[in-house]
Amino acid sequence: MKEKLHPLIDRTDQQLNRFLSEDSSASDHLLSAMRYSIFNGGKRIRPVLVYAAGQAVKARPEACDAPAIAVEMVHAYSLIHDDLPAMDDDDLRRGQPTCHIQYDEATAILAGDALQTSAFSALLTPAEQPGRLEILRELSDASGSLGMVAGQMIDLAAVGQTLNLAELENMHRHKTGALIRASVRMGALAGEASAIQLQSLTEYAVALGLAFQVQDDILDVESDTATLGKQQGADIAMNKPTYVSLLGLEKARAKAHQLIDEALESLNDFGSEADLLRELARYVIERNY
Amino acid sequence: MKEKLHPLIDRTDQQLNRFLSEDSSASDHLLSAMRYSIFNGGKRIRPVLVYAAGQAVKARPEACDAPAIAVEMVHAYSLIHDDLPAMDDDDLRRGQPTCHIQYDEATAILAGDALQTSAFSALLTPAEQPGRLEILRELSDASGSLGMVAGQMIDLAAVGQTLNLAELENMHRHKTGALIRASVRMGALAGEASAIQLQSLTEYAVALGLAFQVQDDILDVESDTATLGKQQGADIAMNKPTYVSLLGLEKARAKAHQLIDEALESLNDFGSEADLLRELARYVIERNY
Repeated sequence: MKEKLHPLIDRTDQQLNRFLSEDSSASDHLLSAMRYSIFNGGKRIRPVLVYAAGQAVKARPEACDAPAIAVEMVHAYSLIHDDLPAMDDDDLRRGQPTCHIQYDEATAILAGDALQTSAFSALLTPAEQPGRLEILRELSDASGSLGMVAGQMIDLAAVGQTLNLAELENMHRHKTGALIRASVRMGALAGEASAIQLQSLTEYAVALGLAFQVQDDILDVESDTATLGKQQGADIAMNKPTYVSLLGLEKARAKAHQLIDEALESLNDFGSEADLLRELARYVIERNY
Repeated sequence: MKEKLHPLIDRTDQQLNRFLSEDSSASDHLLSAMRYSIFNGGKRIRPVLVYAAGQAVKARPEACDAPAIAVEMVHAYSLIHDDLPAMDDDDLRRGQPTCHIQYDEATAILAGDALQTSAFSALLTPAEQPGRLEILRELSDASGSLGMVAGQMIDLAAVGQTLNLAELENMHRHKTGALIRASVRMGALAGEASAIQLQSLTEYAVALGLAFQVQDDILDVESDTATLGKQQGADIAMNKPTYVSLLGLEKARAKAHQLIDEALESLNDFGSEADLLRELARYVIERNY
């Protein structure tokens, strides 16, 4: 699996490196903080999903480059702001000091702000970008007050609260699900997918996004701190509701597997061109970090 | 002057009220904080510049609505983040508690983040938007690491430093100038301005933006706290370099007037359709808050 992902991860890093180059900021300090947070060993799951969804509808890889780095920059900005003292107050991210620790809080706020803008810039930069307007709408709907940011707000309000399963899913559908769904849909739109293809891929993405979150909750109690690159048991320590706290470990595992089955079923009308999406779905519950 | 601006300010407020309505967020709390910061008595200078530049090239007012609210939402988001404890640490803005005081820091960070996304969403929402791609590029270039955010970074780095006039202008050209320039250019692009018109209006905007900042520095020492709605002498107290501290009050006044003359000259090829832009230029140095 990892061998198949490496070329796409490398491609993402090259595109990010080119986009966030010397002439992309009027402040060296700001650019340095943006690059620090972008090149911190992230797994590039969202860009890989863009390319993999593109493959499934025979998009040109070049048409997926801008959507791939755009969604990663939104993801990176959200992590920077999420780690701030006023939010989750995390000092470590993937074993490295978080942006506001490495730089300072003001720089971290601004680096996050600038990375969000850069995400939209990336989609506006290519002279030609198949599906550009739909892709831009996808990213803005998934990122803002209807998507990811609303999810973070719901998440913050949920600390110390008793959520039921429906409320927990609503939170995740916004906080992480929206951007994963957008990643898949942006790759599909870059390949000018048919309405039916887009619908199937959306179902895949929704199931995958939820499975990813269930597995995250499982790893939070199962894995050790060194493997996770963050504090093991952090969610439990903060009294955050999780699938494991609501369902127990066994039922949470069963739910993750069921969601992956759903994701795979939604790809039934695709041939081998969707094999990477299938492998990614299986990888979600096999990963240990 | 104020009578001429009222219809445009009202139009901006109506458009913002419609865009930031109940179905624009998945979190009531988030939407409430976004609306609190948008409807806090802002002068709507940037939206008015969009409409006024649109008038100068005979744009349909409807074509200016989305650019007008987009630039105001970017402005509002930047103020929310600028006021945060890690940044300027301001408790008051236009005489009201700032967003992080009225809500809390986490909510303020997220409300700012969501307002930035909403700015791009606003430009993507209309089925038809003349000049849409150019306007989107204008907004993203002006807002991010090449524009406003870089300016804020430069500004933070400048506290306690000795800047010369060129460095001070570089800071303002990014921090406030970029968005004022974009406002004028977006209005022009919404009216599908010719290249020559766009060039003249850009020169107008650059001079106006700088004049606005020089006048701000003058007001910081001249006006009283009640009129300003913020602490009088705040810049001096923070040891921030200003035009007044570099040039002295008289030369700063002369510079503001010279810049307004430049702004007016750049409109020489326009007829009465640019009268509102002309009046706005004069208003910049006549205002006392």
